[in-house]
Amino acid sequence: MGCVQSFRDMCDRTKNTNVRFSLPAVCVVWQTAMIILFGVFIRYNEESDTHWIEHRKAKNISSDIENDFYFRYPSFQDVHVMIFRYSFGAVGFNFLIAAFGLQWALLMQGWFHSLDYTDGKIKIGVENLINADFCVAGCLIAYGAVLGKVSPVQLMVLTLFGITLFAVEEFIILDLIHARDAGGSMVIHTFGGYYGLAISWMLYRPNLDQSSRLQGSVYHSDVFAMIGTLFLWMFWPSFNSAITDHGDGQHRAAINTYLASGLDRPHHCGRLQPLPETWEIDMVHIQNSTLAGGVAVGTAAEFMLMPYGSLIVGFLLWHRLHPFMEKYLKIQDTCGIHNLHAMPGVIGGIVGAITAAAASESVYGTEGLINTFDFEAGICVAICSVWGDGIIVGCILRLPIWGDAADDNCFDDEPYWELPEDEESIPPILQYNNHMRNKDVVESNFTMEQN
Amino acid sequence: MGCVQSFRDMCDRTKNTNVRFSLPAVCVVWQTAMIILFGVFIRYNEESDTHWIEHRKAKNISSDIENDFYFRYPSFQDVHVMIFRYSFGAVGFNFLIAAFGLQWALLMQGWFHSLDYTDGKIKIGVENLINADFCVAGCLIAYGAVLGKVSPVQLMVLTLFGITLFAVEEFIILDLIHARDAGGSMVIHTFGGYYGLAISWMLYRPNLDQSSRLQGSVYHSDVFAMIGTLFLWMFWPSFNSAITDHGDGQHRAAINTYLASGLDRPHHCGRLQPLPETWEIDMVHIQNSTLAGGVAVGTAAEFMLMPYGSLIVGFLLWHRLHPFMEKYLKIQDTCGIHNLHAMPGVIGGIVGAITAAAASESVYGTEGLINTFDFEAGICVAICSVWGDGIIVGCILRLPIWGDAADDNCFDDEPYWELPEDEESIPPILQYNNHMRNKDVVESNFTMEQN
Amino acid sequence: MGCVQSFRDMCDRTKNTNVRFSLPAVCVVWQTAMIILFGVFIRYNEESDTHWIEHRKAKNISSDIENDFYFRYPSFQDVHVMIFRYSFGAVGFNFLIAAFGLQWALLMQGWFHSLDYTDGKIKIGVENLINADFCVAGCLIAYGAVLGKVSPVQLMVLTLFGITLFAVEEFIILDLIHARDAGGSMVIHTFGGYYGLAISWMLYRPNLDQSSRLQGSVYHSDVFAMIGTLFLWMFWPSFNSAITDHGDGQHRAAINTYLASGLDRPHHCGRLQPLPETWEIDMVHIQNSTLAGGVAVGTAAEFMLMPYGSLIVGFLLWHRLHPFMEKYLKIQDTCGIHNLHAMPGVIGGIVGAITAAAASESVYGTEGLINTFDFEAGICVAICSVWGDGIIVGCILRLPIWGDAADDNCFDDEPYWELPEDEESIPPILQYNNHMRNKDVVESNFTMEQN
Repeated sequence: MGCVQSFRDMCDRTKNTNVRFSLPAVCVVWQTAMIILFGVFIRYNEESDTHWIEHRKAKNISSDIENDFYFRYPSFQDVHVMIFRYSFGAVGFNFLIAAFGLQWALLMQGWFHSLDYTDGKIKIGVENLINADFCVAGCLIAYGAVLGKVSPVQLMVLTLFGITLFAVEEFIILDLIHARDAGGSMVIHTFGGYYGLAISWMLYRPNLDQSSRLQGSVYHSDVFAMIGTLFLWMFWPSFNSAITDHGDGQHRAAINTYLASGLDRPHHCGRLQPLPETWEIDMVHIQNSTLAGGVAVGTAAEFMLMPYGSLIVGFLLWHRLHPFMEKYLKIQDTCGIHNLHAMPGVIGGIVGAITAAAASESVYGTEGLINTFDFEAGICVAICSVWGDGIIVGCILRLPIWGDAADDNCFDDEPYWELPEDEESIPPILQYNNHMRNKDVVESNFTMEQN
Repeated sequence: MGCVQSFRDMCDRTKNTNVRFSLPAVCVVWQTAMIILFGVFIRYNEESDTHWIEHRKAKNISSDIENDFYFRYPSFQDVHVMIFRYSFGAVGFNFLIAAFGLQWALLMQGWFHSLDYTDGKIKIGVENLINADFCVAGCLIAYGAVLGKVSPVQLMVLTLFGITLFAVEEFIILDLIHARDAGGSMVIHTFGGYYGLAISWMLYRPNLDQSSRLQGSVYHSDVFAMIGTLFLWMFWPSFNSAITDHGDGQHRAAINTYLASGLDRPHHCGRLQPLPETWEIDMVHIQNSTLAGGVAVGTAAEFMLMPYGSLIVGFLLWHRLHPFMEKYLKIQDTCGIHNLHAMPGVIGGIVGAITAAAASESVYGTEGLINTFDFEAGICVAICSVWGDGIIVGCILRLPIWGDAADDNCFDDEPYWELPEDEESIPPILQYNNHMRNKDVVESNFTMEQN
Repeated sequence: MGCVQSFRDMCDRTKNTNVRFSLPAVCVVWQTAMIILFGVFIRYNEESDTHWIEHRKAKNISSDIENDFYFRYPSFQDVHVMIFRYSFGAVGFNFLIAAFGLQWALLMQGWFHSLDYTDGKIKIGVENLINADFCVAGCLIAYGAVLGKVSPVQLMVLTLFGITLFAVEEFIILDLIHARDAGGSMVIHTFGGYYGLAISWMLYRPNLDQSSRLQGSVYHSDVFAMIGTLFLWMFWPSFNSAITDHGDGQHRAAINTYLASGLDRPHHCGRLQPLPETWEIDMVHIQNSTLAGGVAVGTAAEFMLMPYGSLIVGFLLWHRLHPFMEKYLKIQDTCGIHNLHAMPGVIGGIVGAITAAAASESVYGTEGLINTFDFEAGICVAICSVWGDGIIVGCILRLPIWGDAADDNCFDDEPYWELPEDEESIPPILQYNNHMRNKDVVESNFTMEQN
């Protein structure tokens, strides 16, 4: 058996090795292209340019504090923490997505939304940085469906296409259909979720259960339950209010998200099933449901959802579809993003549509009337276009040139990471990963002693 | 002996089991009531309502940046992080307090402070969210005294009464006595501390030392020393400045708290006793004293305490009363909240009274003269009323219907939590808990090897 | 051999013991002096004083939101988190530096920059708190070079001199030479780095490899790779924008830092060497390079560096000089601060000089023209003066009165810390430290079983 194992190891090594040449190559080409494109296209906008003082006088703005920086920077910092906590938290290559994705997102979104036609330059400010973080968040969500099953080079491809498609889809939903989606329920969560699931469907691995031990213990539960929840969740109010209108818009979005995401947990305590073995409180379940609350209120956060409306939204969430999906739909969803992002995102779009439909002129004043149809169209676009996109990208990723791991080597960091003997340079999650293995050793050791 | 143990286990199981039905029931009833009450009473205030733009014009406010959101949101986020870090950090059911408490606090405090008599609605904005977090902080402090000794259903009762009493007491101190208490030394810390201690006194368990091993190693030191300190402490300046006056008030409160909480640690290095075995630096001691500094400056943080005054406040703190209390007063204080919150809170009230007494018209301008008597009365109310309240609530909690654990089962998560075999879905603190047990196994294993 | 070892242990105990008397003595004297100096010198400035409302009317400021607090508090909080995360994160006595250093820095910097000549008082506001944090950051960086090799009393001396020299050097660079250095590339990072390295050079321990096992596994890699990176790095934009000009200055500094520090990681993936054993992705390497990006853009962050300029700065970083330094220059650099702070700081100064040289009147408007010469002079001052200072302080620290550990006792916490048997009261890093030892036990145990 030792012989078979070492033969397997050799094969896997060979299969994985090639990213050691292709990954640096892709990185260098990408980064060089970015610097050139930034040099040609990207400049500061009027609020971050040294000519701000002249702009201020021309626009009759009374104080520096009215610079958009002071409206949005605290929210931006929280969003940025969320994104990068996500990137560093997960076990592997998220940081590649974040690093490359942010640059490409600044360009793609800039061409669609911030292009100054007088000189052909993209003018960026703090709002563009927030939007780039949002765009990357969509790709990180998609990554959650294929985590542990793709190579770093495949991730780069997934990101390159993802950012591009995100910008196009966002342009269609926000600028052509004129739906509004402040917290990105449709644009970020539904897009990211179904994009990832479509790709995961195309990359279905029938023999994946061989490495399911690793999936179960390390990837799914720990990484996402712990880091995901604590950090993502505390900053939901900032996430949903980051790009809403100055003044009451940001204020209301923060209140609604606080109520929907922070306070829906009791419901899920109430969902406890009185079955002999499983009726205790399930921590993961509770934590995920708080997350989903923030997603489901995303679109409607800036509307007059009313405080009780936010509480009600907290009820409509998170059902366990995960095993069903893998069994019957042949979609493997490593981190359960369907329950965490895709479904709540759809609910968020529907809540937005209902809230908009219930809006009367007296509630919103004369200016703010919103068309319900936009939201329905927005959800449809988000779901349909994204499945098409995901399938195409999935097909591309099936090409045998990306250095992805063999089935029985999935969810294992070793092929791609330099793991030192003493676990010294690895982040805590990886340590935990190794710690688990050591613990097994300890426990089996102990068991041996007993016998 | 194995026979006795399994009999005990069976008993405890039985004793604990009932919360599996009562807890969900309480949760569902509570949450339903909340949604109805929110629907009847709670609306956005003028700064978070879509009519803000009209309000702005009516009040001649020049810019959206003067919305209260921009004055308070950064502080709110820090306070919110503190509250929920506390909730997730501790080993068990703090999150229940936070989730239910926040909703009930919004209602109770709203009825007292934010009721619009023209239409009978409570109008909420970001300041209400901060105050609700403060109110919950009081209950979380109280929970610290009984941590590990009460069932989740008892916690719900403790929270329901605690929030209610908090709102009443706050109304008396701030609105009837007209004391000021920006950082909540009296209102939050003294209230929360003595409320918890009074309950703990009523719930005194003479045989608790049977589970003291768990208390010592896991609960007291690690959870509160580490997570408590690092996160609570970094955000003290935000906590104490969150609801002070716009402008110089918030500015001064942040400076005073920074000086009092950050800089008093040297004193405690100086307190090291030159005894052979214990004179090394005690990390817990140092960390707790920094915390207490922030509490002790809470009331006076917005006053003209002067920078040197803040440094002096940092000296007046934290003496080791813990063993004394348990031995002679029959009060078991799991997390040492008397030293961390109750006593520093009293000191904070006294510092506030002295600072107010020292205030002259030239220091505060013509408007800000403060009556010393108010603070003395405030402290008395906080201490006396709260002991009465706590004793009554403690009596209620002694009723044998709440499913609390037996003495020798205290400080153990197992009865209430679904702990998976692989520790997969549990937060890091729980893992640590288990890790400790595994470590014991390893060490005893190792010892066996040596022999 | 056991006999020799126990003799050694006894000697080291004796050698270390004396800080148990001298440390409290130094702390008490220092703290008493601080309170007296604060009483004599430090007052609130006009924005944190109760007379703010009169100042507002006199200056015709339209709203409380224009108080400097609202411009700088969110950035201050981030900087403060960075400083204290650093202090608590590292294994030992950083908190002493932070606690004493902040007070002394408020005084030293106050005398140089915030002295009101009309009444001889230092008037402090939130900007002073940020500058004190920066000043302490310089000392914490210096500490990184000698971590594990000095006693707490030596640290106090290092800090006392370091803060003093920092304030003088800052005064020379910013006020006499008129260079600008918003993010402190020269003033903080180059100063702190070379100050620490000069001291480390003076304290060279030829036999240090005896304790190199501890250095390798615990100190260098884990502490700084994990905590250092995650927290320091997420807050770089706040660090570099905290004290820049209101309005476009803070806005631009945040954008530039975001681009330079967040996005330079791909370059370092590209640096992977295709060598058989080490070509995998090195996490520490990647993480450190992101940090260095933020340092290198510090000086130029507020200038019109342009977005592509920030990306380019991300390329110019972090080469592995560490082993070279120790071997040939006799400088032991525990945490690699030369690569992380000193070198990137020099690059930052050069980038600032180039950006300033490239500035034209049309880019900066009529007011903002910057003299290139200033930066060159600034870098020279930072490097040269600091080596002189560091050597003198190093000589003082060589005096045999400070209770430093023997060579073979370095990097061990035991001499200075009260480590409880159950690891209960120690912060996570220390736990990890002990955990490593336990793991060794477990593994050796397991190995024994195999044989």
